[in-house]
Amino acid sequence: MSMTVDRTQIEALVRSAIRQTQPPGGSALPSASANPPVAKSSSPLGWVDGKPNLRVSISARHCHLTDEHVEILFGKGSVLEPDKDLYQDGFYAAKQTVMVVGPRRRMLPSVRVLGPTRAFSQLELAFTDSISLGIDAPVRHSGNIEGTPGCVLVGPAGTVQLDQGVIRAARHVHMNDHDAAYFGVANGDMMQLLIKSADCSMTFDDVLVRADKAAKLEVHIDTDEGNACHLDAASEVHLQPMPQPCACGH
Amino acid sequence: MSMTVDRTQIEALVRSAIRQTQPPGGSALPSASANPPVAKSSSPLGWVDGKPNLRVSISARHCHLTDEHVEILFGKGSVLEPDKDLYQDGFYAAKQTVMVVGPRRRMLPSVRVLGPTRAFSQLELAFTDSISLGIDAPVRHSGNIEGTPGCVLVGPAGTVQLDQGVIRAARHVHMNDHDAAYFGVANGDMMQLLIKSADCSMTFDDVLVRADKAAKLEVHIDTDEGNACHLDAASEVHLQPMPQPCACGH
Repeated sequence: MSMTVDRTQIEALVRSAIRQTQPPGGSALPSASANPPVAKSSSPLGWVDGKPNLRVSISARHCHLTDEHVEILFGKGSVLEPDKDLYQDGFYAAKQTVMVVGPRRRMLPSVRVLGPTRAFSQLELAFTDSISLGIDAPVRHSGNIEGTPGCVLVGPAGTVQLDQGVIRAARHVHMNDHDAAYFGVANGDMMQLLIKSADCSMTFDDVLVRADKAAKLEVHIDTDEGNACHLDAASEVHLQPMPQPCACGH
Repeated sequence: MSMTVDRTQIEALVRSAIRQTQPPGGSALPSASANPPVAKSSSPLGWVDGKPNLRVSISARHCHLTDEHVEILFGKGSVLEPDKDLYQDGFYAAKQTVMVVGPRRRMLPSVRVLGPTRAFSQLELAFTDSISLGIDAPVRHSGNIEGTPGCVLVGPAGTVQLDQGVIRAARHVHMNDHDAAYFGVANGDMMQLLIKSADCSMTFDDVLVRADKAAKLEVHIDTDEGNACHLDAASEVHLQPMPQPCACGH
């Protein structure tokens, strides 16, 4: 659990540091083209028209690396090179990819590295990926990797043996404190995500709230989950606290 | 729509014919090893301890073929050879597989054929499969293939160009009339399937009821859906009619 806290703290510090480099009231950072309109200066981060603006994103398989592993995989003195900003300020898809090798000589040839670097390396797969790779990856929240399987990462300059860190990332929602107050939830709570999609609507339970000062409201699900509800064609997405039993006992 | 009706009628006839070959009160057919205990003679088909016994099955990618296409793909005079019985009486995975070729020279090397043969050929993929194959397969209920994309099927003896029939099969539940009465639903209604699974519970809406006299209660979801909720590790599955708004307005 201490790793989870560390990671959250690190992310919050990164976001916070980046926010401080911006002029008041707007975003001076380059941002993904699909970003919503920039909110007014009086609005909480990511809000549009005075309320949270929900984004649901599919996290394709990816890995996080330590500074040391970046140097081993890509060469002495290498750093991650940002290729595309993610929706969360300060985070990016790097130009670098790694090859992942599982047991029984199965492999994924090209897995994107996300930045910035972290205190530990971690590989996040959808369940389908983990079957392809022949690794029985457990559903875990990011950072909670104790006892998870490992794998081999191969880069152009070297190879890293991860003893643990292969997970299927559990669904979660990033949000800031204003979002949390709006929904009446706190960091660590669980929420429900409803997706309306022709002939394949569904409700995801167990959406973990990861709240900090500098995040924007964004649910992360994996490719299996996104494919199961055909997210790209969804007509409606809705986030809500886990429903309570109602008065009529329904 | 007429094809859907035809198919349902054909399936019902097949099941009905097979039931008539059985001694009263039991199943004389070879059956999948995971079948539930044989019900008492007074019980509706598939019931255990006086109530429906819900099974949720993942349909991996597969195809259905016409008699004509079986002969083209596997040689003059060929018929499908049953390899493994499915849970629904009279249906089986055949020994035969086909190679499926999509546009841009992408392919799936081995897709299982299910029997018995049908009046039309149809390829059922998960969304992940359709992405691999480069085909934009729409979510459709089996038999409703008008306007869907085609593909090329390759067998050891020949090749078939399907002009249409590639779908992502919409989730559905087979049941007999006793099951339907138990749940208070009718053929064509929609139900909800709840899956409890550690850190990835979910609720599937839009589960179409396909009721006929000879079916056993079984939900079919695809591999994306099964992976999204980690069905293999599920602690609880529950099927219910779509909930109605409750008295307290909750």
